[in-house]
Amino acid sequence: MKSGTDPDFALQLAVERLHARYAHALDADRLEEWPDFFTEKGRYRIATAENEERGLPLPVLYAEGRAMLRDRIASLRHANIYEPQRYRHMVSGVLIEPQSGSLVQSTSNFLVVRIMQDGATLLFASGRYVDRIALPEMKYEERVVICDSRRFDTLLAIPL
Amino acid sequence: MKSGTDPDFALQLAVERLHARYAHALDADRLEEWPDFFTEKGRYRIATAENEERGLPLPVLYAEGRAMLRDRIASLRHANIYEPQRYRHMVSGVLIEPQSGSLVQSTSNFLVVRIMQDGATLLFASGRYVDRIALPEMKYEERVVICDSRRFDTLLAIPL
Amino acid sequence: MKSGTDPDFALQLAVERLHARYAHALDADRLEEWPDFFTEKGRYRIATAENEERGLPLPVLYAEGRAMLRDRIASLRHANIYEPQRYRHMVSGVLIEPQSGSLVQSTSNFLVVRIMQDGATLLFASGRYVDRIALPEMKYEERVVICDSRRFDTLLAIPL
Repeated sequence: MKSGTDPDFALQLAVERLHARYAHALDADRLEEWPDFFTEKGRYRIATAENEERGLPLPVLYAEGRAMLRDRIASLRHANIYEPQRYRHMVSGVLIEPQSGSLVQSTSNFLVVRIMQDGATLLFASGRYVDRIALPEMKYEERVVICDSRRFDTLLAIPL
Repeated sequence: MKSGTDPDFALQLAVERLHARYAHALDADRLEEWPDFFTEKGRYRIATAENEERGLPLPVLYAEGRAMLRDRIASLRHANIYEPQRYRHMVSGVLIEPQSGSLVQSTSNFLVVRIMQDGATLLFASGRYVDRIALPEMKYEERVVICDSRRFDTLLAIPL
Repeated sequence: MKSGTDPDFALQLAVERLHARYAHALDADRLEEWPDFFTEKGRYRIATAENEERGLPLPVLYAEGRAMLRDRIASLRHANIYEPQRYRHMVSGVLIEPQSGSLVQSTSNFLVVRIMQDGATLLFASGRYVDRIALPEMKYEERVVICDSRRFDTLLAIPL
């Protein structure tokens, strides 16, 4: 990990902006925009920290390519039509590592709260995003969501 | 929403600094500084996401102009004199949209925890700030606090 | 507190990067890296907001110098060997105040969640960091962790 000297400030802010736009799209229930944050063949994976550390290739969820991401959203819309829950994504500690002129890696922490219909607010998920971002289009070539908890209820949840 | 290219970096950081100073003033109980984060005729409004989406003009709280904001703080000081609660504001995902040379809009996510006298820490509120910020003075011409939950206990709470 | 004009953007981002690297090291259980975020004689202190406001010199924890910080980690490793908890640090609202060419002060808010072995996620701590950072090496000459809650269970916890 490089120290604080000579980071690429413009790229840092551009990556933070991408993460912010992603979070706002989900929290505003604009789920149909979600696939467009990925490249055409972009990959999305949810894993648990426990499995990730053990090298177990058991994603909680895996989708590859915008078509599959769109299917996922279509399923959610069908299943969740009567579930008026809300989510709020907080992102923090964005670190970038430029790999080349066309790729930057990013690691960041997240915390998601879920607001139930009766108004109760719960800690829903925490963890880190490990991303590969394609330049200059600023889209996720890969977004890996590594959740701290082994407990999950993401089948009927919006993407993290 | 524009993509990550060509943002105004200086303005982005100045807006983030404004939000940070606002949060620290509230969390340090320097409530008397709160009105000075607004322009002379600045507006402050708390709404629920539910009402906002339905277009219902029913703010949980509305104040316009620094004089009214100061009155609000005076009332809080009177009512809350024996309530040694603490708050901690987390802000994330700050997106800016410059409107003109004298105005920038900002949307950001927030999470506020409340620390009770016995030490218990609770999720108090989550939601988003939708702001109109006057340039170059960097003050809120309007700050709309859109809370995710419909449950509220803000009458005796500090500003969000 | 200075207004939003003329901040040192490069320094702002470098400080945020330092805080981010610190958080990721702790959350990834790379505790042995922790002392290296401090200068050779760096100080680390955990206090409660209550004691801090009363001027009581009663830190919850105090360590000075990398040797003592390393001892602390060694103790944790010994005591915690069977405690597979996880932590997630969120940092927000980073404000910097350059003091000289070789020192910058930083204040920021933090929220830490703890993920238990059974998957439950709890709010563990909230508060603010008040830091003195040595330049140009970008290490903490002093990191004061001021916790909002008076309740503590940090003896067996990782650093905040």
